[in-house]
Amino acid sequence: MTDFHFSTPSSLPRARAFAIPFDGEPGAFNAITDVPGVSVGYATLISGSGPLHVGHGPVRTGVTAILPRPPADIARPCYAGFFSGNGNGELTGIHLIEEVGAFSLPITITNTHSLGVARDATLKWVAAHRPEALASAWGLPVVGETYDGFLNDINGHHLTDAHVFAALDGAVAGPIEEGSVGGGTGMSTFEFKAGSGTASRRVHWAGKTFTLGVFVQSNFGKRRNFMIRGHRVGAELAEPRIQEGTPRAEKSSIIAVIATDAPLLPHQLKRLARRVPLGIAWTGGLGYNSSGDIFLAFSTANGEAAAGRSGNLLSLAAIPDVDIDPFFDATVQAVEEAILNALIANADMTGRDGNFVPALPHDWLRMTFGYAR
Amino acid sequence: MTDFHFSTPSSLPRARAFAIPFDGEPGAFNAITDVPGVSVGYATLISGSGPLHVGHGPVRTGVTAILPRPPADIARPCYAGFFSGNGNGELTGIHLIEEVGAFSLPITITNTHSLGVARDATLKWVAAHRPEALASAWGLPVVGETYDGFLNDINGHHLTDAHVFAALDGAVAGPIEEGSVGGGTGMSTFEFKAGSGTASRRVHWAGKTFTLGVFVQSNFGKRRNFMIRGHRVGAELAEPRIQEGTPRAEKSSIIAVIATDAPLLPHQLKRLARRVPLGIAWTGGLGYNSSGDIFLAFSTANGEAAAGRSGNLLSLAAIPDVDIDPFFDATVQAVEEAILNALIANADMTGRDGNFVPALPHDWLRMTFGYAR
Amino acid sequence: MTDFHFSTPSSLPRARAFAIPFDGEPGAFNAITDVPGVSVGYATLISGSGPLHVGHGPVRTGVTAILPRPPADIARPCYAGFFSGNGNGELTGIHLIEEVGAFSLPITITNTHSLGVARDATLKWVAAHRPEALASAWGLPVVGETYDGFLNDINGHHLTDAHVFAALDGAVAGPIEEGSVGGGTGMSTFEFKAGSGTASRRVHWAGKTFTLGVFVQSNFGKRRNFMIRGHRVGAELAEPRIQEGTPRAEKSSIIAVIATDAPLLPHQLKRLARRVPLGIAWTGGLGYNSSGDIFLAFSTANGEAAAGRSGNLLSLAAIPDVDIDPFFDATVQAVEEAILNALIANADMTGRDGNFVPALPHDWLRMTFGYAR
Amino acid sequence: MTDFHFSTPSSLPRARAFAIPFDGEPGAFNAITDVPGVSVGYATLISGSGPLHVGHGPVRTGVTAILPRPPADIARPCYAGFFSGNGNGELTGIHLIEEVGAFSLPITITNTHSLGVARDATLKWVAAHRPEALASAWGLPVVGETYDGFLNDINGHHLTDAHVFAALDGAVAGPIEEGSVGGGTGMSTFEFKAGSGTASRRVHWAGKTFTLGVFVQSNFGKRRNFMIRGHRVGAELAEPRIQEGTPRAEKSSIIAVIATDAPLLPHQLKRLARRVPLGIAWTGGLGYNSSGDIFLAFSTANGEAAAGRSGNLLSLAAIPDVDIDPFFDATVQAVEEAILNALIANADMTGRDGNFVPALPHDWLRMTFGYAR
Repeated sequence: MTDFHFSTPSSLPRARAFAIPFDGEPGAFNAITDVPGVSVGYATLISGSGPLHVGHGPVRTGVTAILPRPPADIARPCYAGFFSGNGNGELTGIHLIEEVGAFSLPITITNTHSLGVARDATLKWVAAHRPEALASAWGLPVVGETYDGFLNDINGHHLTDAHVFAALDGAVAGPIEEGSVGGGTGMSTFEFKAGSGTASRRVHWAGKTFTLGVFVQSNFGKRRNFMIRGHRVGAELAEPRIQEGTPRAEKSSIIAVIATDAPLLPHQLKRLARRVPLGIAWTGGLGYNSSGDIFLAFSTANGEAAAGRSGNLLSLAAIPDVDIDPFFDATVQAVEEAILNALIANADMTGRDGNFVPALPHDWLRMTFGYAR
Repeated sequence: MTDFHFSTPSSLPRARAFAIPFDGEPGAFNAITDVPGVSVGYATLISGSGPLHVGHGPVRTGVTAILPRPPADIARPCYAGFFSGNGNGELTGIHLIEEVGAFSLPITITNTHSLGVARDATLKWVAAHRPEALASAWGLPVVGETYDGFLNDINGHHLTDAHVFAALDGAVAGPIEEGSVGGGTGMSTFEFKAGSGTASRRVHWAGKTFTLGVFVQSNFGKRRNFMIRGHRVGAELAEPRIQEGTPRAEKSSIIAVIATDAPLLPHQLKRLARRVPLGIAWTGGLGYNSSGDIFLAFSTANGEAAAGRSGNLLSLAAIPDVDIDPFFDATVQAVEEAILNALIANADMTGRDGNFVPALPHDWLRMTFGYAR
Repeated sequence: MTDFHFSTPSSLPRARAFAIPFDGEPGAFNAITDVPGVSVGYATLISGSGPLHVGHGPVRTGVTAILPRPPADIARPCYAGFFSGNGNGELTGIHLIEEVGAFSLPITITNTHSLGVARDATLKWVAAHRPEALASAWGLPVVGETYDGFLNDINGHHLTDAHVFAALDGAVAGPIEEGSVGGGTGMSTFEFKAGSGTASRRVHWAGKTFTLGVFVQSNFGKRRNFMIRGHRVGAELAEPRIQEGTPRAEKSSIIAVIATDAPLLPHQLKRLARRVPLGIAWTGGLGYNSSGDIFLAFSTANGEAAAGRSGNLLSLAAIPDVDIDPFFDATVQAVEEAILNALIANADMTGRDGNFVPALPHDWLRMTFGYAR
Repeated sequence: MTDFHFSTPSSLPRARAFAIPFDGEPGAFNAITDVPGVSVGYATLISGSGPLHVGHGPVRTGVTAILPRPPADIARPCYAGFFSGNGNGELTGIHLIEEVGAFSLPITITNTHSLGVARDATLKWVAAHRPEALASAWGLPVVGETYDGFLNDINGHHLTDAHVFAALDGAVAGPIEEGSVGGGTGMSTFEFKAGSGTASRRVHWAGKTFTLGVFVQSNFGKRRNFMIRGHRVGAELAEPRIQEGTPRAEKSSIIAVIATDAPLLPHQLKRLARRVPLGIAWTGGLGYNSSGDIFLAFSTANGEAAAGRSGNLLSLAAIPDVDIDPFFDATVQAVEEAILNALIANADMTGRDGNFVPALPHDWLRMTFGYAR
């Protein structure tokens, strides 16, 4: 097994370290973990350098686990909806979500060629921790992926069950690390180093406050299209720092997971998922051909109903559709910020064959936007 | 305005007059009107004979109105789902149903080229009867169609607002006429005369009894594929009764509307709609290329929630998905029987240019299945 | 019949009169009519003022006709794809497009409550001009709508067959009028007067140049979200010019039609349609709940194949998906500019009950962006 | 690694051993392998008996590989379409198929909890045999599953890379084994032993003959609903042979793969996939809630176009939609027969905890239908 380390929140700045004029009101941690009960864990695999030797590295990959409910409750379904903005990627578990508007078990996100490990290992972890959930039933885990083969020995299949278990066991609420951690370890966006990012928004409605959190594994975009809050910065940020002689693989994707404690029905969660491309568009992403832009939205509310016991009339609550616009705003705003967090909470990385991806320069951000006060 | 008459329940037999071994337990009228609050009205236009003179007949057409709720409540939405088995047809209002899982206002079904009249006239009727519903809002009526141009002067556009109003005003609960009435007037199925048909099933669940009713405007199918309860009767029923010299236009479609008082969520109603082709398959229909096989399922339950007033948390009830199979059974069984009713409660018809469509012979049914006791 | 006039290209400025830094290379007219064979016609109905008297005005509405092929060839299908960004609206003909990836006949766009007239009148027009097309076959016209009830006596149903015929007969290639004309007459966007807009982009590929044109009927958006090329101008453009006492109906929608002469297959045209919301997002539109954001993309290429004669193996050409990104760019860029054209080529309008919608001020545009040189 | 054996065509009868009156004209082997270039391989894992010891068996599972093209050409995409009849299951690779209408690499089918192994092992096998295909690109393999936990130690995760490689390496054209082999090893249908089944039909069109082949992994259905060619045999075949004390897990699914050499476009292949439930309905399957009924259709034609090289205008051939009905017939007929083959080419099986699934009795088939002559 390749060595790996548990990521811990680092000193890297987030987007709000700079005076970027975001919309909306973030939650306490400005993270998907602001949604009560949601936790995130990472296993990050970084080892070796130099030429690619398939199966022997260099390794720049990992896996991210998002637990939609506390571990003791992990087999309880969540209502959910999905949308594929551009389907050149994988997100499993979707047929069930389309059919019954729900999924259960943890979500994992990793590299494209290790998705199968993440999926089956999730089932093993559930069988170990909640054996009754799979004793006479099956699981259909939600697993997403993006491609890290520019930096990572992706055909070396370095991810193992143990890494997946570590990410699942290590899931925490509260502040979470971003950037080159977990499944996002080897990813880039607008040809800058990116990976894992998160953000959240509060929505006040009828005297209540709900939270909507977004997590992205961000790995998309052409430099020239890059925008920050409407500033078309792509042209300005020319590409000299990408090493000569390392042709940049034009492979890209973004997985976004939206969590909320607002009681939304499956068809409403699908509506949220369909707004994710709008937030991506605000950063300059247009869903290019090679991109797997696949999005999931789930609600932690209505857990009793989502569990759906035979013979019991379900009782559900829901926000009316006529009041859903603030949740659309929150989705678009948090997607935009989560992508920028994935870019900003980051550093340069050199991977296999010396392939190099620069970080979005923090000094340029400071000069362009200034520090936040 | 072309003369028209109101149809009244006639002495034509229904499928259960014969000993055809159906599955399941029908409601009191074995009709969509077994669902409380649902009513059906027809305007039937039959006039003229001989050669086609576009705009002057012969006329063999009409319009059907299905009111999902009592007229006083007609602007209250119903949760709904839709499925297109083969999309060579039209059913309006579907984008909203896909988006918010609901529609309001009456449903109408007519011939392909008069769908627009039926749609706008429905809005006029609503504006007249429930002016507050459209005073500062729009309506997106559900209107379906099938093609009757083999018998009817379809390009004569004989349907008028007055016919649509008559069908809407004439909607009744209880037993309803079937066969060559309303929108089904000029339709055929398996190259026999068909048109409007209905059936229903009861579903017992957790000490309650729900009703699921189906209405079809049936206009599809190749004679050779015709089946009745598994008996492949198509080959046996050869085609001599179709007049020489009248090439049968191979144009076909089926619109099915499923109503239920069971509390089902939008995603569940979509599941019902997706089972309609299975009932059609039991009669020998395979969704051929020229067919517009488009299906709507709605629930009259959860009316408060479907109305969705701003600032109010919705409270919904639902059958759990784990218990939905009996509703699938009911859908398939009632679709099958509704199609047979459209065929059996019928008689020969000659239309434009002497084009002739024979009825499914009642004496053959008696010989093959016997009379029911 | 309400009086109406044929619109003619006016002296109103388009977005490029100002130094707004657009991306991409427009076609000769920067219009959907840059696509060879495509023509656009309008009928504009403006009459009356003062209080609403349903059926008697004031009238602020119309209908737009987009002919995808020259009239002589209007029954020949075009390959097409569709996407609903938010389905609170209507676009007919979609089931067939989903099924066989094609439609035929002219496209029309009007107000929500006159869609039926536009649809059936289109069939009458085709039957009159190309009788063989509907002699023994049906038509399933594509008709879209947005809601103009804030300014227009929409429940007066003022649109007639004659208006639709006029728009169809009046369709022209070359430069076309924009703003408050045709179906766009009574529409607004970001609470400014809007309506009809168009733009185009050239795509150079493999030594060839293709054109992609967009037409929008634009009627969406909250003022506060309005953006022009990344400038969040909504807050700046406060709302004092909307008259006191006229509560703004929050009803909104956008229909977009994309035309191209590039040989793209149905699944590729669907991909284009799915990018329309990204261009809308660039202007600040997020697909709010009350919006019918429905999009159609068609190709004029492969006409022989789309016609699909029985017994003939079809021969098609297509751009490979790996080269489709410039068409995505062109779509997003042209959608953005078409919306701005609908806003800028416009003037204040007062409608029923004195309801007032201001134009986006040209002097503000000049001060903010300057005139183009 | 659990012992496994390569399956070889056995002496078990197929459906055509009995005088069941099927429709249509089968290909030479009445198998998916009648489509030139398509091959099928199995790895079958059967070991142990007695009580379940998770991780130690008993084992009744396997994996099936379907190679859509010869191994040397396995990275070349095939045009494809998909449909989910009831999405309580998994079929990966679908987002790409929805987006670009194509997939590449072998298809595998296994048990629900080993799908990840099959997916990643397929990528390893491709990287080993066609390294250039994945050197700087990703793969998104199509992998399906059904649930065998009633007989198999499914949470023991007995499937390994080696089994998947064996199935891929062992793929053959010509006659293939059916029943309890490969991924179908532990599956049942209508509560009889089932698993893998195949059938094919020839379609004559415009002087050419095309082949359409179907492969199913069949694991669905309630005994009471079972039909054979319209004969409702379910009630007759009561359930005494299911052992007392072994409650039958009501878990069910069917994966169907349709292959054809006919040149069909992605939207047409989707149409074929949408007809699969009609063939299932002919056997009594109604897509019950717990069933994962997911279907893929692909064409081996237009390989150059599907490969889609940048800068090259694609040239495609296609059957016109107006002539597609015989392909619908072929699909429905072959699906029906493939399911019956999975049931008939089979024998009783006892699995974990003594759970027993009887074979559909051959003597009953003989008495009911007689032997074919």
